[in-house]
Amino acid sequence: MKRVIGVIGGRRVSGELLRVAEEVGRLIAERGAVLLCGGLGGVMEAAARGAKASGGLTVGILPQDDRGCANPFIDIPVATGLGMGRNVIIARTGDAFVAIGGEYGTLSEIAFALQLGKPVAGINTWDIEGVMKAESAEEAVRKVVGDFRIED
Amino acid sequence: MKRVIGVIGGRRVSGELLRVAEEVGRLIAERGAVLLCGGLGGVMEAAARGAKASGGLTVGILPQDDRGCANPFIDIPVATGLGMGRNVIIARTGDAFVAIGGEYGTLSEIAFALQLGKPVAGINTWDIEGVMKAESAEEAVRKVVGDFRIED
Amino acid sequence: MKRVIGVIGGRRVSGELLRVAEEVGRLIAERGAVLLCGGLGGVMEAAARGAKASGGLTVGILPQDDRGCANPFIDIPVATGLGMGRNVIIARTGDAFVAIGGEYGTLSEIAFALQLGKPVAGINTWDIEGVMKAESAEEAVRKVVGDFRIED
Amino acid sequence: MKRVIGVIGGRRVSGELLRVAEEVGRLIAERGAVLLCGGLGGVMEAAARGAKASGGLTVGILPQDDRGCANPFIDIPVATGLGMGRNVIIARTGDAFVAIGGEYGTLSEIAFALQLGKPVAGINTWDIEGVMKAESAEEAVRKVVGDFRIED
Repeated sequence: MKRVIGVIGGRRVSGELLRVAEEVGRLIAERGAVLLCGGLGGVMEAAARGAKASGGLTVGILPQDDRGCANPFIDIPVATGLGMGRNVIIARTGDAFVAIGGEYGTLSEIAFALQLGKPVAGINTWDIEGVMKAESAEEAVRKVVGDFRIED
Repeated sequence: MKRVIGVIGGRRVSGELLRVAEEVGRLIAERGAVLLCGGLGGVMEAAARGAKASGGLTVGILPQDDRGCANPFIDIPVATGLGMGRNVIIARTGDAFVAIGGEYGTLSEIAFALQLGKPVAGINTWDIEGVMKAESAEEAVRKVVGDFRIED
Repeated sequence: MKRVIGVIGGRRVSGELLRVAEEVGRLIAERGAVLLCGGLGGVMEAAARGAKASGGLTVGILPQDDRGCANPFIDIPVATGLGMGRNVIIARTGDAFVAIGGEYGTLSEIAFALQLGKPVAGINTWDIEGVMKAESAEEAVRKVVGDFRIED
Repeated sequence: MKRVIGVIGGRRVSGELLRVAEEVGRLIAERGAVLLCGGLGGVMEAAARGAKASGGLTVGILPQDDRGCANPFIDIPVATGLGMGRNVIIARTGDAFVAIGGEYGTLSEIAFALQLGKPVAGINTWDIEGVMKAESAEEAVRKVVGDFRIED
């Protein structure tokens, strides 16, 4: 089974953080992992775009009950219809997470991931005990995936 | 966006129905659609095996909170942790459904799919108004997908 | 712990069935049980009105994320924000159920309740194996609660 | 409709914090509000015990699918079967919250409540922007409910 790495973060973040998110998505795909996210805009869309640019597979766990709400870089949109309740499914489905910026929604995802004992690297995000701080996309991905390509 | 066809049905069904489920999975993959199911055994596993044998992509929406519970033919397991509450996510995520055998869990999925106005073909399953009866895998898939290959 | 009896059924039903639902609610409260429902209109509101008229306690499990969506006869509205996904919570929370009329949503609740092995009495509703048919409010409540008042 | 005040917090906290939680529950009931919590042990049980001691009404939103898992001070247990996914229902159902101690689960509830724009007072809990720090049960309840009794 392939590794699944979640990228979590806000819909309204700076252009600089969007570039970081895209790079994180690219690095996840290059390591052969599936990119998991919330399927919407901002950090989620940037990470999915980066993963697709490197030929990766992308999964979006949507709050809405309509798959059409996913951003155009999502291969597999899952229409939960649970609103922000879908955050717990993201935490349960990913093996590890990179958090980038983000507001209270991202905080709930970080909390659930840490409650499940999963690794979370954070770039410019909530300063919560258990989150591994990273200064760059490369450092964050290395912290949650390691240096080497994962074979399928 | 690719079409997503859900196969719903029981974990304990006859060998004959398992062969039908595998054929349904094969036909869905041959038409270029993604196979969606509940990710566990019985009809779900048979359909996923059929889809993989034809090079398809398979998604499993699991009741458990651990991706490792998926059957070995699931490419993308989603660990909802919602128990049978995950049935509503299956109904929301699929474009159309084939129901094969099944007990009360399958009945809840049929009910949700019909409530959402989505096509449901049924083989040897609950006799509910709105379900299109089919006698074979081919007839069922034709009823919900049509005769021709879906281009990506 | 008090018994909790769920009343499930459609939002759009005949005046005759609404009168039956109100009577069911009244009888549930008279037996000292809590009335559980989906918190909205139609059968749900009629049953809650009947229970309140007899001094009962009413709980409504809402699809919306706003308690203000509950009908005025609900004492304890629970705002799930899960849409029709809340149906599974109704099935899990009730000890037994009376189904009155209803469409596909009601069918999903019947399915979940039966999957959990809980008694379901039905008045003019889906003809599903396992549902105990009843001709009147009194017969339905007797079938799921018994003849005598439940002491707290 | 009665005000509903949620008390959130850990299952494993010090005796001192349990005494605070019990006092918070008592004050909530004295002000005529419904006490909402996660229905299990620790802070949840202490708060419910305090509310019952003052004649209040208590609601517990359980992770399990069995009402019998509720602590003995819960009047209305709701069996969600969603695991920690039930935290979002607590946040949606309460009007305001008091957080006491707590670990990652409590953090997810704080995050959801703040995302919904609801008041959260915190006693010895996560230091998150938006949480109103309080030093005592009285201060916390005053911050989220006000000084006066709420009339029904």
